[in-house]
Amino acid sequence: MLKLPRGTRDFTSKEMQKRRYIENIMRSTFRSYGYNEIQTPTFETLELFKVKSGQGILDELYYFKDKGDRELALRPELTAPVIRFYVDKLQMEPKPLKLFYFGNCYRYDRPQKGRYREFTQAGCEIIGTDTPEALAELISLAYYILINAGINNLKLKIGNLSILTSIFNQMKLTKDQQKYIIPLIDKSIYDDIYNALKDFGIDSNNAENLINFLQTSDIKTIKKNIKEESAKGEITKLEKIIFLLEYAFGIKNFQIEMSIVRGLDYYKGLVFEIEAPILGAEKQLCGGGAYELISLFGGRDSPTAGFAIGFDRTIVALESENFNFPKTKIDVFIISLDEDLIEKSINIAQTLRKQGLTVDLDLMRRGLGKSLKYASSINAKNVVIIGSNELKQDSVTIRNMETGDQKQIKIKDIKNNIW
Amino acid sequence: MLKLPRGTRDFTSKEMQKRRYIENIMRSTFRSYGYNEIQTPTFETLELFKVKSGQGILDELYYFKDKGDRELALRPELTAPVIRFYVDKLQMEPKPLKLFYFGNCYRYDRPQKGRYREFTQAGCEIIGTDTPEALAELISLAYYILINAGINNLKLKIGNLSILTSIFNQMKLTKDQQKYIIPLIDKSIYDDIYNALKDFGIDSNNAENLINFLQTSDIKTIKKNIKEESAKGEITKLEKIIFLLEYAFGIKNFQIEMSIVRGLDYYKGLVFEIEAPILGAEKQLCGGGAYELISLFGGRDSPTAGFAIGFDRTIVALESENFNFPKTKIDVFIISLDEDLIEKSINIAQTLRKQGLTVDLDLMRRGLGKSLKYASSINAKNVVIIGSNELKQDSVTIRNMETGDQKQIKIKDIKNNIW
Repeated sequence: MLKLPRGTRDFTSKEMQKRRYIENIMRSTFRSYGYNEIQTPTFETLELFKVKSGQGILDELYYFKDKGDRELALRPELTAPVIRFYVDKLQMEPKPLKLFYFGNCYRYDRPQKGRYREFTQAGCEIIGTDTPEALAELISLAYYILINAGINNLKLKIGNLSILTSIFNQMKLTKDQQKYIIPLIDKSIYDDIYNALKDFGIDSNNAENLINFLQTSDIKTIKKNIKEESAKGEITKLEKIIFLLEYAFGIKNFQIEMSIVRGLDYYKGLVFEIEAPILGAEKQLCGGGAYELISLFGGRDSPTAGFAIGFDRTIVALESENFNFPKTKIDVFIISLDEDLIEKSINIAQTLRKQGLTVDLDLMRRGLGKSLKYASSINAKNVVIIGSNELKQDSVTIRNMETGDQKQIKIKDIKNNIW
Repeated sequence: MLKLPRGTRDFTSKEMQKRRYIENIMRSTFRSYGYNEIQTPTFETLELFKVKSGQGILDELYYFKDKGDRELALRPELTAPVIRFYVDKLQMEPKPLKLFYFGNCYRYDRPQKGRYREFTQAGCEIIGTDTPEALAELISLAYYILINAGINNLKLKIGNLSILTSIFNQMKLTKDQQKYIIPLIDKSIYDDIYNALKDFGIDSNNAENLINFLQTSDIKTIKKNIKEESAKGEITKLEKIIFLLEYAFGIKNFQIEMSIVRGLDYYKGLVFEIEAPILGAEKQLCGGGAYELISLFGGRDSPTAGFAIGFDRTIVALESENFNFPKTKIDVFIISLDEDLIEKSINIAQTLRKQGLTVDLDLMRRGLGKSLKYASSINAKNVVIIGSNELKQDSVTIRNMETGDQKQIKIKDIKNNIW
């Protein structure tokens, strides 16, 4: 039998109803913050992702040559394509430029629970400003997208890579040493970090200090540890962002975490992550921050920040929280008791559709019993039964499929009699 | 510079507004007819498209091997994936099963006006019934999707491949001879058809007869020419479909055309096409009909019909007809006259967003003049200016960006004062 490719999914109509419902909420939240939707192609030149992430990315990519011998890759993420688009065509747009997008992405990962080879991301970029209010607004947008989607339990963590790098520099860690401990920080393996620091010749005092620094959420403690002027500026900015989040955007439940490293080396300054703890190991729903990519892609530098939300995982989080997704229903299902009445039943269907209702009708000339059973299987709320006797008085029978009540009404009154 | 791949497109926010607007109209029309949305992966096994269309399809496909040495292809169309999905997981669903979908498709074509290597299709399938009312409803759905989208000038053509094949058989044309003239019929090159028939040894009378048959829209003339019983049955069914289209679905402007061949050899019986004449050579917006694919994919046979609409071309047709697409606007843009008032301006923005408004605010601490210019560039309908004096009385200044009128109002009255 012909199978769907490994790591990909077919979505049933029940799943698509959930997906479109959440997509619409996300889209209207993006819009309510003044962001505008754009779209880029599903594949890009392989070069684009190599420039952004280096040769290492090849292992995770679907890439291939087209018939013109061009090397192409299915996009693994959307930031690089969007910045490519910006550099190519949008540099002259008024700033700040607020862009959002939905798109399918592809990674040649080992398929596992919550990880697919084709998955959907929602994301955005703000280009042209990095004031505290712009960055606080960005975090607020990510947070409220997930809140508006209906997730109850979220954990928002905010960090800053410039501050982290500054403390590394104070400790005189080399770039290679930093590279070695960053993945350990990402995974919160503090014993290994401590041992690594000792191996690097850092004294126990300073090593313990860093571990504490990585684990504290107290901005005063963080401040105390930083000596570099530029990093002190970053702390002041972070304090302003936190203030705005709390007192202007109304977000209380966030935490400062200097251990957020985001695994991506083009991030600079602010980074943040939002988790749904209910999801366990695969709990991260959103990651974002300030970054520099424009100049790497040949554009004129400008402050940039953005985030990506895992769309599929957001759905899984809602399902795990037993979110009550609205069900799409058929307003009216029409059954004619006689083949000669099909024309009339279509007439009525068309009139009701023009009035904005969702209408289906028996297309298989089955008897009343089988048609009612079908109507129930497709979640019809009301059934209209057309018989020749009633029709002589411009009437039909309407049946409430929940209660089973039925009554005779005039055709023109159908719309007022459905629930 | 990093470029987008040949034959693909980036969509600006202006273009995306149009696309989402049309997509929503199409989706709600599908739904109003009782169709349910599904989705399949962007790539499939190469095998799927070879089984459906033969080796010849390879020339038009993007295909490649993944790291597990599986042969995959970016889908060139959506019917094969949907029927694969049906055979795999949906065969037990109550019939009829009415499915619709949107999806990007890929063809390795020479890029030209209106033809891209990545393009979007909207389409549907009805599985389990082929009554005249089911097929008439399908045609009606395709037609009203395009009408509801806003296209003024449409041409609906309806044909039938069983009837066409029947007349070929009456003339004793071999399969090879049929294969030779079908592309000529598709392109309406009647002189070449006539000459080919003469070469096949058909007398002038019969040859002229076929040409007339291909060019008439009169069902009586078509009827007169057909002798086979099963084909006569198809004509009776076609008459019933036409009757329902006209008198039940309210569609008057269609034409019977026996010359519709659709170029796809899995179609059987009814075929139809909808064109937008304004588009010239690339005028076809929709093609569909009844077809047989389920058994080819290993499923239990069941009547199937469907259509595909070229989404990109629908947009181009609307643009060519100067359709007035609604413009997304920013309801309120907020400017604070003092950095200390940023917190307050965010407070107001958040309140208005919660009320369902689209709100943006100055994130670059520019002066009033520059901010007003920016507000105008992003289509803000109203600007709210926050100054410390007005704020003492819980007031702000609101400016109508169309008229330039401005007045002082209470903060709580902002929503009632925007237009």
